[in-house]
Amino acid sequence: SWVSEIIDQEINPHVDQWEAEGTFPAHKIFKILGSAGFLGVNKPVEYGGLGLDFSYSVAVSEELGNIRCGGIPMAIGVQTDMATPALARFGSAELKEEFLLPSILGDKVACLGVSEVGAGSDVSSILTKAVRKGDEYVINGGKMWTTNGTQADWICLLANTSDAAPHRNKSLICLPMTLPGVHIARKIDKLGMWSSDTAEVFFDDVRVPCKNIIGQEGMGFTYQMLQFQEERLWAVANIVTMMDNIIQETIQYTRQRKIFKQPVLYHQSVNFRLAELQTEVELLRSLLYRATALYIKGNDVTKLASMAKLKGGRLAREVGDSCLQYWGGMGFTSDVLVSRFYRDSRLLSIGGGADEVMLGIICKYMDTLPKK
Amino acid sequence: SWVSEIIDQEINPHVDQWEAEGTFPAHKIFKILGSAGFLGVNKPVEYGGLGLDFSYSVAVSEELGNIRCGGIPMAIGVQTDMATPALARFGSAELKEEFLLPSILGDKVACLGVSEVGAGSDVSSILTKAVRKGDEYVINGGKMWTTNGTQADWICLLANTSDAAPHRNKSLICLPMTLPGVHIARKIDKLGMWSSDTAEVFFDDVRVPCKNIIGQEGMGFTYQMLQFQEERLWAVANIVTMMDNIIQETIQYTRQRKIFKQPVLYHQSVNFRLAELQTEVELLRSLLYRATALYIKGNDVTKLASMAKLKGGRLAREVGDSCLQYWGGMGFTSDVLVSRFYRDSRLLSIGGGADEVMLGIICKYMDTLPKK
Amino acid sequence: SWVSEIIDQEINPHVDQWEAEGTFPAHKIFKILGSAGFLGVNKPVEYGGLGLDFSYSVAVSEELGNIRCGGIPMAIGVQTDMATPALARFGSAELKEEFLLPSILGDKVACLGVSEVGAGSDVSSILTKAVRKGDEYVINGGKMWTTNGTQADWICLLANTSDAAPHRNKSLICLPMTLPGVHIARKIDKLGMWSSDTAEVFFDDVRVPCKNIIGQEGMGFTYQMLQFQEERLWAVANIVTMMDNIIQETIQYTRQRKIFKQPVLYHQSVNFRLAELQTEVELLRSLLYRATALYIKGNDVTKLASMAKLKGGRLAREVGDSCLQYWGGMGFTSDVLVSRFYRDSRLLSIGGGADEVMLGIICKYMDTLPKK
Amino acid sequence: SWVSEIIDQEINPHVDQWEAEGTFPAHKIFKILGSAGFLGVNKPVEYGGLGLDFSYSVAVSEELGNIRCGGIPMAIGVQTDMATPALARFGSAELKEEFLLPSILGDKVACLGVSEVGAGSDVSSILTKAVRKGDEYVINGGKMWTTNGTQADWICLLANTSDAAPHRNKSLICLPMTLPGVHIARKIDKLGMWSSDTAEVFFDDVRVPCKNIIGQEGMGFTYQMLQFQEERLWAVANIVTMMDNIIQETIQYTRQRKIFKQPVLYHQSVNFRLAELQTEVELLRSLLYRATALYIKGNDVTKLASMAKLKGGRLAREVGDSCLQYWGGMGFTSDVLVSRFYRDSRLLSIGGGADEVMLGIICKYMDTLPKK
Repeated sequence: SWVSEIIDQEINPHVDQWEAEGTFPAHKIFKILGSAGFLGVNKPVEYGGLGLDFSYSVAVSEELGNIRCGGIPMAIGVQTDMATPALARFGSAELKEEFLLPSILGDKVACLGVSEVGAGSDVSSILTKAVRKGDEYVINGGKMWTTNGTQADWICLLANTSDAAPHRNKSLICLPMTLPGVHIARKIDKLGMWSSDTAEVFFDDVRVPCKNIIGQEGMGFTYQMLQFQEERLWAVANIVTMMDNIIQETIQYTRQRKIFKQPVLYHQSVNFRLAELQTEVELLRSLLYRATALYIKGNDVTKLASMAKLKGGRLAREVGDSCLQYWGGMGFTSDVLVSRFYRDSRLLSIGGGADEVMLGIICKYMDTLPKK
Repeated sequence: SWVSEIIDQEINPHVDQWEAEGTFPAHKIFKILGSAGFLGVNKPVEYGGLGLDFSYSVAVSEELGNIRCGGIPMAIGVQTDMATPALARFGSAELKEEFLLPSILGDKVACLGVSEVGAGSDVSSILTKAVRKGDEYVINGGKMWTTNGTQADWICLLANTSDAAPHRNKSLICLPMTLPGVHIARKIDKLGMWSSDTAEVFFDDVRVPCKNIIGQEGMGFTYQMLQFQEERLWAVANIVTMMDNIIQETIQYTRQRKIFKQPVLYHQSVNFRLAELQTEVELLRSLLYRATALYIKGNDVTKLASMAKLKGGRLAREVGDSCLQYWGGMGFTSDVLVSRFYRDSRLLSIGGGADEVMLGIICKYMDTLPKK
Repeated sequence: SWVSEIIDQEINPHVDQWEAEGTFPAHKIFKILGSAGFLGVNKPVEYGGLGLDFSYSVAVSEELGNIRCGGIPMAIGVQTDMATPALARFGSAELKEEFLLPSILGDKVACLGVSEVGAGSDVSSILTKAVRKGDEYVINGGKMWTTNGTQADWICLLANTSDAAPHRNKSLICLPMTLPGVHIARKIDKLGMWSSDTAEVFFDDVRVPCKNIIGQEGMGFTYQMLQFQEERLWAVANIVTMMDNIIQETIQYTRQRKIFKQPVLYHQSVNFRLAELQTEVELLRSLLYRATALYIKGNDVTKLASMAKLKGGRLAREVGDSCLQYWGGMGFTSDVLVSRFYRDSRLLSIGGGADEVMLGIICKYMDTLPKK
Repeated sequence: SWVSEIIDQEINPHVDQWEAEGTFPAHKIFKILGSAGFLGVNKPVEYGGLGLDFSYSVAVSEELGNIRCGGIPMAIGVQTDMATPALARFGSAELKEEFLLPSILGDKVACLGVSEVGAGSDVSSILTKAVRKGDEYVINGGKMWTTNGTQADWICLLANTSDAAPHRNKSLICLPMTLPGVHIARKIDKLGMWSSDTAEVFFDDVRVPCKNIIGQEGMGFTYQMLQFQEERLWAVANIVTMMDNIIQETIQYTRQRKIFKQPVLYHQSVNFRLAELQTEVELLRSLLYRATALYIKGNDVTKLASMAKLKGGRLAREVGDSCLQYWGGMGFTSDVLVSRFYRDSRLLSIGGGADEVMLGIICKYMDTLPKK
């Protein structure tokens, strides 16, 4: 496929270098992907998208799992499935022209401003404020864990636009990162995902036109929630391929590596364990496909998508940890994919709603929580 | 549905009694199910079947999971998906008339004679012999773990019909249990599955016409392997419903049962754990549906079906063990479904190919075993 | 040792029969054990005990783990470490003469009346009342899960003797089971521990002299808590030996049982798993010895004892479940120790303070619970 | 204690810098530790040691667990318990004077040359050769994973000194790293343990006097095996303290960090999980103490020490992974101890005999392996 060609030719040969540098050239890579249509698979044709259903996004995400690090797929996912879906659905034509079209074409890099210090998985407790003054919002506050943050052209910012109840006082605003008062405080030094820059960003009396609001004022939290199903399925599609690859590379390596005169692979504790892991991957893939099929038919799959995200995060930790073991000392070096995966994939259980948040959602759908 | 009516009216009201008695009236129950068509869902119409594809068998198996014990569904599964598939596919018209038709109508109870003492999961090492003498086979040997064995009218018997290699010397033979020389040695006393009688059967110079062989001589092992995909998916469909029910009953019970003045259910360690278990059940259900859909389109799903069987057996142990805990002392009594499930479901990881056999098959498909 | 002789000669040869009967002759067996001194290892010499420190009780409990069922050791433990410690420590000389002495000698069978329907692990919420009328208490209420309850001569009963706060309104009372108004409602049918009778007992205006109270009125809850350390360590000592035995018998059986022409034991997935289980057993044994040594030096080992109990309950489930698997079909019969252990040992995580109660205690000692 | 002062004043304030630099000043730190006696706790007094029994080494190792990284304790452990024990026991007076004395005083840094590419846990298959030519050995080959390798003054080298059977053809040789022909090929880039330099070293016709051999020729493998008990217990003592610290810091952090308006710590899924982890740590500490006590009384504790090492490696992975989760996004940064521990501690299951090697040893002692 085209995606795989781009990965093989334009991305994978440079990953080691980008990992060492702690960032990758998002503008260059996004332009390549955008030109080929991969940044707008399920986005409207009139803004450069392919207009396909979400199952095609899942297919592309599966392909992107072949990138030899977690950071670049994540950066792409932020562009396509985290920073732009609300804009595509609820934004005005003018806003879409200015922010969505170039993001789909790969001319602009987007980031998402939701998480804050002390408000990661708990979105409702953010503190960033947008106060209306005339035709403008004046914005003050700070965002944390902002993927693509050091190189983004614009941010899809969640801010409190009133003092109403926490679920009704938030709005999404398209905000150019070049505006006066936007400060990139620092690039965060992370356990993994090194290719992907993560910023802490501050907003100090930043002024943005009121028309930059996406959809209705006060609906930001709701819009954000709406896209969680896609975000989660997208992330799962990605990790499923990565786990396939890690298992396959481990099979190949352990077939050659001998211990006590026998290939490591041929020890029953090894091949049985790999069989167990592949079984779990197939289970997850099956849930992904089932949830995606239900979703494109119009069903609410929040419960299934949250289950898939939960399992994806946990299984990735198991796959990374178990496979690394069979690489022996090599597994503890930075030379092999498995140790990068071990570091990178640890994020999945934390970001995009931590495991415990997923469990809370599942409980809510199972009706097992105390009534308030 | 009709199945659920039969379960509610004819089966569940009697289960406690049958469990205490260690057997259930197979002829009576099979006749009811057979009259309604449920013993031949995917069997040919000309022999009383409904002629539907295998996905309908899966749906019926899911319904049968609502029976309040594991033994009776197992007995039905032996009749429909273990003792008769080879006959339906490869048997002569005469044999089908004599054994298949009445088994589908519920007039005859069938059992399967594969396992032997010392040859459970390792089918190739059975010792029962069928020696051809003129127009008859003379059969000697013994079978173990024979479900329905004490009340069956006929047995689908796997026996060695030559001294060729272990995979080519076996044949399946339809053998009436009333023949001279058939001895029911004993009813085996089991950890669970009490409603279902399990026999040890001996064959002492039992003579059966050669025409009672199913298909070709020497093909028994192959025929047996062929039906494993269906057997395994059938078993998984069954257990998935049972696990749904166990989780639901646990939710209901723990909502009422209080500890330290709060419902047990509202403790986070409880509702989170139930959410984890339900997540795993959804994963398994998804794999079941995916494998079934691939299977009825003609694909080999041996790997996926083996994965599902492996997961089903292991997950049932987890669900039973975890849920029982939340019933407190009640969980340790025989009065509740969860303790019966705890005993019954332990069999799934052992029977029909143990977990370790599944792992071996998966490894074979992953090509991770030593070359011989 | 003497204990092992008694076990080999007087107990183990009859266990299968007692399991089938659902009870064992407590008076006969206790008399044998009592005559040899094993019912009062750490009890005062003046009431027939051996006056040794608690480490000797632990050693005896380890020996009792060689009994081929869980029910009889449990019955003994109730007699020596659950129903009598408070009496031995806080009882009047008269009470000890009447109830402790014959219990140590094996002339009387004791039971403990703490748990009630709806108040198992949560002792503070019991409802049984003892109302003082003149020189007597009039007792009304019911007790559940009463081990030895159908054959006990007396019960060490926890009852509310006032309307004060739940931790200060309870008293322990020695109550002969022959008194008018004591009704054995039923013998409870259990998942395991079949040799041991478990009763539901009702008290209907039962009158007992006030002098039958142990120690001070209102201190029952406190006395009960005080003996938990010993109770838990005793139970752990017992299960450690049982797990040793189960692992050893599994090694012996799987050395003989062949699958695919090789002993089951020689498959790496089997011998590695058994090594993991034995490792966990050694860990538990080490904690048992460390906690016991600290305890006899006068330290509060509530945290360590609760940790040991928690681990013991969980590990027993793992050992039983994993080992049973390697017995194949035989593991699912009632003919083997491992299936009995699988049923019996499931109780350890529920009785004597469930796992969740242990976790709560550990949290309290770690100071990780919300302040009230 | 003195160790804790040195750690607080001389080590911990610099750890972040050393981690970033990928090495630490071993000569400086070892001199400080050596002057205070901590590099020769159980070494002979005549060569600068304290002459105490091994339990004191364990106590020092526990203290060293307070260093805020895994690399420096490992480097110290290599000096005291991996590179010098054989020399202390079996070396000539002359050799001890030259290599042991300065290593204990902290004047020389030692490294151990055992592992090779393709021979990590399987020591018997090393290829480095020492060929005797007159009074010298001429050494060729390469060593991998050499801790302290870039700054060591001498290496305790395992080399094949004959063509005899693999367990009898190896010798340990004290070899100055300044000799011609010793090449430090590269510093290996690792997943964790960044403060500690790890080298690949090549030997190209390196000539060393024959008198530099430790003890008898051909006994190197045996000497190496002899010290494994101490090595393993030392490593366990170290990790136990680290796990205590990680759990404590997690408790402190989650007490402050709020989610959904409640401290993270007060969610039952969190405090229960921490209680489970602390329970496992106490189990491991108990086994460590039991094995150490048995060892200093002269018992072979190879089985118990291997069990402790196995559990230590696995538990550290669990503790790191579970605790990191509760730090949310912070856990994924490099700013916190828990993410460093997550990376560093992953080595314990691989180095010093991988988990699978431990399992093999335990199986050997349990007599569960196939006879050859």
